[in-house]
Amino acid sequence: QADEAFVTLATNDSYAKGAMVLGQSLRNHNTTRKLVALVGPHVAEPCRDALQSIFDEVRLVDIMDSGDTAHLTLMKRPDLGVTLTKLHCWTLTHYSKCVFMDADTMVLSNVDELFEREELSAAPDPGWPDCFNSGVFVFRPSNETHEKLLEFCNETGSFDGGDQGVLNSFFNTWATADISKHLPFIYNLSTVSIYSYLPAFKQYGHDAKVVHFLGKVKPWNLAYDAQRGEVKGHSSSPDVYQLHPDYLLMWWQLYSKEVLPLLQRAYGDTPF
Amino acid sequence: QADEAFVTLATNDSYAKGAMVLGQSLRNHNTTRKLVALVGPHVAEPCRDALQSIFDEVRLVDIMDSGDTAHLTLMKRPDLGVTLTKLHCWTLTHYSKCVFMDADTMVLSNVDELFEREELSAAPDPGWPDCFNSGVFVFRPSNETHEKLLEFCNETGSFDGGDQGVLNSFFNTWATADISKHLPFIYNLSTVSIYSYLPAFKQYGHDAKVVHFLGKVKPWNLAYDAQRGEVKGHSSSPDVYQLHPDYLLMWWQLYSKEVLPLLQRAYGDTPF
Ligand SMILES: O=c1ccn([C@@H]2O[C@H](COP(=O)(O)OP(=O)(O)O)[C@@H](O)[C@H]2O)c(=O)[nH]1
Ligand SMILES: O=c1ccn([C@@H]2O[C@H](COP(=O)(O)OP(=O)(O)O)[C@@H](O)[C@H]2O)c(=O)[nH]1
Ligand SMILES: [Mn+2]
Ligand SMILES: [Mn+2]
Repeated sequence: QADEAFVTLATNDSYAKGAMVLGQSLRNHNTTRKLVALVGPHVAEPCRDALQSIFDEVRLVDIMDSGDTAHLTLMKRPDLGVTLTKLHCWTLTHYSKCVFMDADTMVLSNVDELFEREELSAAPDPGWPDCFNSGVFVFRPSNETHEKLLEFCNETGSFDGGDQGVLNSFFNTWATADISKHLPFIYNLSTVSIYSYLPAFKQYGHDAKVVHFLGKVKPWNLAYDAQRGEVKGHSSSPDVYQLHPDYLLMWWQLYSKEVLPLLQRAYGDTPF
Repeated sequence: QADEAFVTLATNDSYAKGAMVLGQSLRNHNTTRKLVALVGPHVAEPCRDALQSIFDEVRLVDIMDSGDTAHLTLMKRPDLGVTLTKLHCWTLTHYSKCVFMDADTMVLSNVDELFEREELSAAPDPGWPDCFNSGVFVFRPSNETHEKLLEFCNETGSFDGGDQGVLNSFFNTWATADISKHLPFIYNLSTVSIYSYLPAFKQYGHDAKVVHFLGKVKPWNLAYDAQRGEVKGHSSSPDVYQLHPDYLLMWWQLYSKEVLPLLQRAYGDTPF
């Protein structure tokens, strides 16, 4: 178990906040595994210090970007080319098995049982459910796999311009080969699914283990009124409705109680 | 193969039009299996006659309705209680195996290979992908299963007020037990998924075998200009955007060329 880790990624200070909330949520639920944050060179020094106090390992990685605006525009997410940076996680070969989690996820309970699964295990994507969502997946670090993935990127590219397209083309038997590699959806509950099939959320949602703030608007894009305990800007944009208010509040409570103090200590008098 | 059948359901004349398009699409792609339409008592006589000329068997069934407006309202679909009528399909015991298809589906190629699958095989629902969508599923008619299903309805009810909730609770190991019971998503391609993850549709959509006009607005709710070959009312409601224009056009072309003449013959001078 000492050679198993949860891994996340942040290429900028905003996603770094998300990573801190994720890391802290894993700690709060007493994970026995190591925590690793991959960070890009644009993450500020004090921000890395704050990450350092939650994660066992904060590792600097190069930015990889698909630059594939054509495909990314199809998703209205021109920013996601950079998610190819995620592929660096396969180089963490001092671990035998890892669980990657997006910086916009948060655990609601201990999820160490995920390490019983094999590469590549992931939950279905609600947009196209024969694809897995690459926000939470179990993998085995391997330089060989890493090189094959890079080669694949160069030769085939990504059908969506981001990591999810590449990973689904590379691990292309996920939908058909082995049911044990299908993580239950409650390990990667996209907040969008709450509204797309509300009765199912009411039936199964109370067992949610990982919430994923998938989509354009992230919790850190909103404001929080700590006095009133309310998330604000909550009806400004229709996209925001996609974020479930209860989970959103949990994210902000965790951030303001346990993450903000770390950032304040790291930044001192410098505004951030 | 003579004891295998495609089965659909129509409780009113509108859904009956959909059933006719589905049946005709199966014929056009040379299915070797029988075609069965279950119809409710409100389907008009001439409409049944038209169904009769496409389907091998048109069978009258009682309406079952959950009357569960509370759950149905969660989905904004108060009309779907009646879909419990679908459960009658298990009483077709003169067939050994069947494929149920919603009246708002249409096949794009021969799909007889579905009969190689076992009960209960179905494709994931894009709203909550650990549920199967009950618009296309493989089943084995059995009075015993039918009775158990009715009992289950009475005791447990349906978490969504419709057939999909009951069937998912009854066949509750679909998500975890056997990958061969996961039909590829292209056998039940909801038109909503085209827009929720457009790059995946561009990557995988050309292999689509069954299109499903899932949602509130159905093809028959729109108008068609046969002269111009255009579906109209196409930008009036945001819901309509969910219907992919190419598939919508295919539906209307099939309807106006091959189904409308049957209806005109059956209705004679009576308007319909
Ligand atoms: O500018 C970015 C965009 C993404 N990411 C990382 O890539 C993941 C995937 O991106 P995102 O979560 O925004 O995609 P979505 O889940 O909304 O499709 C994020 O969670 C981060 O870990 C990042 O570090 N910087
Ligand atoms: O008033 C109705 C509603 C539904 N149905 C049948 O039940 C199926 C499921 O309903 P629908 O397709 O409207 O649900 P959706 O796929 O949009 O969830 C239909 O395709 C029809 O076969 C019917 O006969 N009459
Ligand atoms: Mn994400
Ligand atoms: Mn339907």
